[in-house]
Amino acid sequence: MPSLLVDQEKCLKNIERMARRAEQHGLSFRPHCKTHQSAEISYWFRDFGVHSITVSSFRMAHYFAETGWKDILIAFPFQPGELETLHVLSENCQVSILLDSPAALPFLNHLGHPVGFYIDVDTGYGRTGVRTENPELMEQILVKAAGNPQLQFKGFYCHAGHSYKARNQEERSTIHQKALSDLENLKKQFDRHKPRVLYGDTPNCSTQKDFRGVDEITPGNFVFYDLIQHSLGVCSEQEIAVALECRVAGKYHHSRQIVIHGGAAHFSKEFLYMEGKSVYGQWVQRNERGWTQPERNTWLTGVSQEHGVLEDAGELFNQVSLGDALLFLPVHSCLTANLAKEYSTLNGRRITNIHST
Amino acid sequence: MPSLLVDQEKCLKNIERMARRAEQHGLSFRPHCKTHQSAEISYWFRDFGVHSITVSSFRMAHYFAETGWKDILIAFPFQPGELETLHVLSENCQVSILLDSPAALPFLNHLGHPVGFYIDVDTGYGRTGVRTENPELMEQILVKAAGNPQLQFKGFYCHAGHSYKARNQEERSTIHQKALSDLENLKKQFDRHKPRVLYGDTPNCSTQKDFRGVDEITPGNFVFYDLIQHSLGVCSEQEIAVALECRVAGKYHHSRQIVIHGGAAHFSKEFLYMEGKSVYGQWVQRNERGWTQPERNTWLTGVSQEHGVLEDAGELFNQVSLGDALLFLPVHSCLTANLAKEYSTLNGRRITNIHST
Repeated sequence: MPSLLVDQEKCLKNIERMARRAEQHGLSFRPHCKTHQSAEISYWFRDFGVHSITVSSFRMAHYFAETGWKDILIAFPFQPGELETLHVLSENCQVSILLDSPAALPFLNHLGHPVGFYIDVDTGYGRTGVRTENPELMEQILVKAAGNPQLQFKGFYCHAGHSYKARNQEERSTIHQKALSDLENLKKQFDRHKPRVLYGDTPNCSTQKDFRGVDEITPGNFVFYDLIQHSLGVCSEQEIAVALECRVAGKYHHSRQIVIHGGAAHFSKEFLYMEGKSVYGQWVQRNERGWTQPERNTWLTGVSQEHGVLEDAGELFNQVSLGDALLFLPVHSCLTANLAKEYSTLNGRRITNIHST
Repeated sequence: MPSLLVDQEKCLKNIERMARRAEQHGLSFRPHCKTHQSAEISYWFRDFGVHSITVSSFRMAHYFAETGWKDILIAFPFQPGELETLHVLSENCQVSILLDSPAALPFLNHLGHPVGFYIDVDTGYGRTGVRTENPELMEQILVKAAGNPQLQFKGFYCHAGHSYKARNQEERSTIHQKALSDLENLKKQFDRHKPRVLYGDTPNCSTQKDFRGVDEITPGNFVFYDLIQHSLGVCSEQEIAVALECRVAGKYHHSRQIVIHGGAAHFSKEFLYMEGKSVYGQWVQRNERGWTQPERNTWLTGVSQEHGVLEDAGELFNQVSLGDALLFLPVHSCLTANLAKEYSTLNGRRITNIHST
C-alpha cells in the first residue's frame, strides 16, 4: 500500500514560519485544517499559540470538535442541509459559519445556542461570497440577521483563491492589494459593527508583506505545501513536508519505464504541466533524515486508479529493483492527503486522520 | 455531505447485459471489482453465475476474501512488498497474481499454499506487461516458475487500456483485433501449457462482437458506467447507474452561477473537455424512479476540494433554492466511488464499501 510520509520537522518549521509572520503583522492565526484533516497535526499548532481553527465542511468541524477544538470556523457557505449538525456542534463549541445570501437566514431562526457568522466576501475570485461591489446585499444580510438573538455578526471572510491563477508575484500582489483595499473599505463602511477581517490563502499569507486592515489569517496548505505551491514560487522544494511512498511494481527495459503502485486513488488526478507533460508527482531521494532533491527532475507522468507511470525514469531506472520504495512529492497535498486513511512519520509512527478507522 | 446514489436496477441490467454477452460468446465472466469496491454489490453478480472476481490491489483482495470470495485474481503486477498479504490470502482463497518479469519469481520461492499466475501481456497499451513481441521473456518467466511447486501458470492476462484513447469504434476495433490476434498467437505458441486467455476492458467488452481465443472477460467499470464511457460511445446516458447527490450552497445572481457542496474530494479531479470547457459532472433531474436527462446539458465546470461550480446553470438557476439536492453523473465512476465511504440506493438504503467504518 502506498503510504503518505509526513516530515514532522518540516511541518513544525512551516507552522512556526507562518505563526511568526502572523505575529509580526499583529494578526491572529486561525489555520485551516482541510489539508491535513488530522487531530494530531492540529495539536502541533497549539505550541504556536493557536486555539482556533478553520475547516471547510461540517463533517470536518464535527471531527475537530470531537478531538477537542472549541473555536471552529466552517469556511463554506452555510446551507440548510447542515442545520442538524450545526445544532449539535454549537452545544459545546464556539462555531462560526459563512453567509453570502439572506436566503440562508430563515433556516437559522431557531438556533439553540449562539452561532457566529462572517459575511463571505468575493474580491474577484468568483467562486462564493458577496461581491465587494454589492454592499447593499451585505446590509440586507445584516438587517435580516439582526432579529436573530443567537446569530452574532463577527466580520468579513475572504479567500482570494484567484491568487493561485496569478502567473507571478506581481500579479499575485495586485490581487492581494485589491482584496486588502476592498476589505478596508468594508471595514469602514460597516464600522458600527466593529467587524473583524479574516483573510488568507497560502500563496498570499506566505509571501505578502502588507496586511493592513486584516485581523486574522486562515491559510491551510502551508503546513505541507506541494508542487503547485512550489510552481507558484510560494515555497521551496525543501519546505514540502509530505511525500507518498510507493513500491516499484514493474521495470520495462525496452521503454526504460518504471511502474509504481500509486495512482489516482493515492495521488489524485491533479496535475501540473511541466515541459509539455502532465505531472502527477516528483520523485525525491530517500535519505537518513527524510529526502533530498535529486539533480535531475524525474516525474510521475501518468496515473490510472492504482498504477503510476514514470515514462522517462532516466538514471533512476538503473538504480531501482522490483519492490523498492520510492518517494514522490505530491502535486496538490490537500487532495493527496484526503486519499490517505492515515499518515506515517519518517520513523514509522502512525498519524491518524479523519478517514482513519 | 455529498452522497453517491446507486440505481440498483440499472446496475443489475448492466450486469445482466455483460453476463449475457459473455454467455453468447462462450466466455467465463470474472468481473473487476475496483469500480464498486463493495461486498454487497459484488454479491449482485452471483445471480448471474459469477463465482470468481478480479481486483487491482492486495488490499482489495483482502477485503473481498474477508467477505466470502474464494477465487480472486489480483490484476496488478506482483511486487515483493505484498508477499505477507499473499501468504495470508492464499491460506483460504484461490488467489492468482500477475507477473511480467522473472525478477518477481525469487520472492515467491517459499509460498505456503498454491498460487496461480497469469503473464500480463502488453498488446500496445504500454503500461505494464510483457510485450507480445517478446515471447522469449515469457519463456524465461515460465522456465523460472517451473521449479516452484506452489506456483501454477494459468495463462495470459491482457488489459488493452489504450481502447480508452480510441477516438471512434473503428480505432477501438483495430486495437481489439490486434490484441485478439496477439493473444491467439501466444495461445498457440504456449499450447503445451494449455493457457487460458483473460481479457477485457469495459469499452471492448461492451461493444465488440468477436472474442475468438478469449476464455474469460474481466471488465469492471460497466457496472456503473460514467460520462467517459458515454463520451466513448460505449454506453447510453440511461445506462449510467450512479449519481452524486450534492446540496446547493450558493446562488449568485450577477453571474447566474450555482455553487454546490461537492468538489474534488467527492467527484475527483477527472475531467472531460466538452464544448471548450473542463467538465467534472453533468446535472440530471431527479424523479420518482431515479433520474432523467434534461434537454439541455448543464455541467459542473469547476471543482476545488469541497466546492463545485456550475458556471452556466441556465434554466436550472431559476429552479433551485439553497439546500436543494442536485444529482450529477460522474466523469469517472471508479474514482468518484473510491472517494465515497458508502453508497445509498435510490430508496435510501446504505451500501457499504471497502472504505466504510
